[in-house]
Parts: sequence; C-alpha cells; structure tokens
Amino acid sequence: MDTAIDLSDPSKALDLANIRFQLIRLEDTIIFHIIERVQFPLNPTIYVPGGVEIPGSDLSLADWLLAEQERLQSRVRRYEAPDEYPFFPRVLEKPILQPLSYPRILHPNDVNVNATIRQKYLQEVLPEACRKFDREDRGETKENYGSTATCDVMCLQALSRRIHFGKFVAEAKFQKETKRFVDLIKKEDRKGIDAAITNSEVEKQVLERLRLKAKAYGSDPSVGEGGNEKINTEAVVAMYSQVVIPLTKLVEVEYLMQRLTATEWE
Amino acid sequence: MDTAIDLSDPSKALDLANIRFQLIRLEDTIIFHIIERVQFPLNPTIYVPGGVEIPGSDLSLADWLLAEQERLQSRVRRYEAPDEYPFFPRVLEKPILQPLSYPRILHPNDVNVNATIRQKYLQEVLPEACRKFDREDRGETKENYGSTATCDVMCLQALSRRIHFGKFVAEAKFQKETKRFVDLIKKEDRKGIDAAITNSEVEKQVLERLRLKAKAYGSDPSVGEGGNEKINTEAVVAMYSQVVIPLTKLVEVEYLMQRLTATEWE
Repeated sequence: MDTAIDLSDPSKALDLANIRFQLIRLEDTIIFHIIERVQFPLNPTIYVPGGVEIPGSDLSLADWLLAEQERLQSRVRRYEAPDEYPFFPRVLEKPILQPLSYPRILHPNDVNVNATIRQKYLQEVLPEACRKFDREDRGETKENYGSTATCDVMCLQALSRRIHFGKFVAEAKFQKETKRFVDLIKKEDRKGIDAAITNSEVEKQVLERLRLKAKAYGSDPSVGEGGNEKINTEAVVAMYSQVVIPLTKLVEVEYLMQRLTATEWE
Repeated sequence: MDTAIDLSDPSKALDLANIRFQLIRLEDTIIFHIIERVQFPLNPTIYVPGGVEIPGSDLSLADWLLAEQERLQSRVRRYEAPDEYPFFPRVLEKPILQPLSYPRILHPNDVNVNATIRQKYLQEVLPEACRKFDREDRGETKENYGSTATCDVMCLQALSRRIHFGKFVAEAKFQKETKRFVDLIKKEDRKGIDAAITNSEVEKQVLERLRLKAKAYGSDPSVGEGGNEKINTEAVVAMYSQVVIPLTKLVEVEYLMQRLTATEWE
C-alpha cells in the first residue's frame, strides 16, 4: 500500500487530507516501535555517558548508536528529505547516492526539536512505558543493551518524523488562512498562533484512536480480549498527550514564527 | 514486558514453553516490519547490483545497507548473541563493547540459511506482499529507496532471527528424545528427522494465528472491520507457510545433522 506521502509534489504534500492520512499512519509506526522497545527492561545504563564505555566516544551507548545510525543513513540521503531531521547534525556525511531534487514545499526554517524529543522520551515516555512490565527479579540485562538501543533509534526517529510533520500542517494552514496568520506572526503572538492551530476535538479523537490502536496492536488476537498484553496502553496515550501533540504544536508555532522571514529566494 | 528470552541461562533458553513464547512474540515483530515495508512500492531497482550506483561497492542498494547495518551492529556485539546470524559475515567488525560470556547452549554448528532467506524474501515474499497495493500510476519512487531498504533490513533480520531459532527448538527436542534423534542422525535420515520434528496440527495453528494477527495489526481499529487495510493478510500467511516454517525446519534438520560431531570441547 503506497501510504507514504509524496513529497516530490507540493500540491500533494500540502493537501490536508494527505497530511492527516500520513499522521494517522505514523501512529501505527510509532506504536509498533514502542511495543518492540518494551520487550526489554528500561536498562538505564545505556543512557548514561560512560555507563557503557565506548572507546573514542564520550556518548552514552544509546546516543552513540543513534549518531552512527544517522551517519549511515545520511549516506543514503535520509536527511535530504524535507520530513527528516537529525538528532546529531554534526555526524552527517555527504550522500553516496545522486541527490534528489525535492521541490520547495516548506519555507526555509531551522526548527528542530529533537533535543526535547530525546529528553522527554528518556525521562517521561520510557519509564512509564517500561514500568508496568519491568520485573523486579530481573532488572537490567546487559545481553539486551544493543537490542534496546536499536529499538530506541526506531522510536526516536518515528517520533521525530511525526512531530516535525507539524511543519507541513502549519504551512498548509498558513496557505489556507494567510491573512489571519500573518497578523498573528507580525504581533509575535505565539499564544494566538497556538490557539489558531489547536482543535481540542480533534486532539481528543487522536487520543481515543491511539488507545484503540495500542490495545489492538498490543495484544494477541488469538488469545481474546487483552490477551498477552505487550504494552501499557495508557503509557502510549500519555506519550501522545504529553509529548507528541504538544511538541507538534511547538513545531507548528515556531515554523510559523519564521514564515515571514525574507530568504535569498524572495 | 520482558518478553525477550534469557539466553544467558541455558535452562530457560531451552525450555520449550519459553521458546514457544518467543516464537509467537517474533510473529508480531515480523508482521510489524512487513507492514512498515509495504507502505512503499516494490522498488525493484534497489535489489539490482548497479541499479542504484554505489561508489566503491558493487552491491545493490538493499544489500549495501544491510551489510553496513550489520557492520555497525557487530560493533555493539549483535553477532555474539547465539540467536543472531549475519547475512554478510565478511563485513563484521570487532565489538567495541566488552564481550559477554554467553553460556554454551547450542552444539557448535555452522548452519546459516540467510542466503536462502534473502532470496525467498526478494522473490516470493515481497512481490506478493507489495502486489495488491502497488498502484499502476506510481511505480517506483526514488524518494523512498532509502526508506524501503531500511525496512527490508528490519524484515530480513527479524525473519533470520525467527528461522534460526529453530536451533533452540532442535536442541530442546534432541535433549528430550535423545535416543530417537541419535538413531536418525546416525542413519543420516533427514526425512526421518523432518518427520520427527513436524507437528502439522501446530503448523496449522500458527498459520491461523498469523492470519488473525495480520488482520488485527494491519487495520485501523477505529475504522471498524478491515478498516484502512495496511497489508495483504494472505501474503503474510503465505510468507510463513512457504518460507518461515519450511526454513525453520531446514535449520532444525541441519543443526541436528551436526549434533553428534565431535568438537574441541568433547
């Protein structure tokens, strides 16, 4: 199913129905990855610089693996795509593949909230998602440090993509109600912009859908209701209400705040 | 949920109930990854050496990314784990982490069916899984080559882990019915071993569970029955009946054929 949004066509990329479809589809991706992650205990050691000693690096194991993954994926031009933002921009390398010519869809901007995503993922999402299932008799398992960090890479990248998709949402809204937003931006009225992009009813629907999805994807349908629960459903809902939705709105607001900046193209 | 099997404890690693739990859990992992993969079209160009030119390598893009991923993960000791087998053993590097001392669980053996897994994945699984959804008006999308290859890495690694878990199944069965298997192995009776490890009733149950899972994880529960179908359910079932189950049994048989070989430890 070609569900990936076509970012090579500005009219499709900014169609709110397409964006909505992509955002809903990304919910599945995020839930799949977090379900995979909580197979393993919290393993806090991998998040502490020096917790696992890495020759030649002072990063934590989790950060080191994320940075190396970004280095590798930058070579197959991941970070040329307008919906991908790195956590470690300094490690990126020149792509080995021919560059693609994406059309200009977004206004030039430097919004990147990955540092906040990473912090909230470690401090809020993981402890809550892992808590319910961490068995006291087990604690950390060194054997799973690598697998755990690998799952974290997938979770963080999916969260980052979902949250930075807010830029497309913001651009589409800006094009739809340009005058309203220009006024708010000129007044630097971040609260007003936040109010203009917020739809509480839709947010409630998102959380309700998340709950249903986490329950469905997190249980074994052959076992019946709640069979072999793989994830704490409420932790998934909280991840969205406390991290994904607020940070998406932050991205939208900050993107719009840069929307009127003159650029070399204008 | 600490669902990862504890391979540092031989009694747990060879407990058939634990193995069964792990195999059922790996079904979810595989289904999640294949659902992610079929977001993108087949993109056959990435599987052809030279299809995407890679400076300094004559591998296809998909193989190159898999090899580089294995190189990176070997450094965090992925391939020291007794349930992980590389597709490109020649690229592996020395781990940067302290080695773990896994106890000896399996008999020394060189069974690795990854070449066959890769071939069947490309020739049988992908065309079928992608077919139903590939839109004629779209065909390949270069913008998704990297994402597609990244999903393939996840699928292939999950399939490989699931299929090579057959070694633990075989070892547990061998320990349970040693005399029976020793006789068959001495006679080099591969057919007899295959018959001894086959339980058609269980295989039928596995396929039925797969069908339920593919349907549940592949639809949006907020939309109702079959809502926003993300994957061709029968392609997932066929992947198991034609690839996963036969190759797992091949691994079991070939492992057992090496089970009586003297080693330096004996």
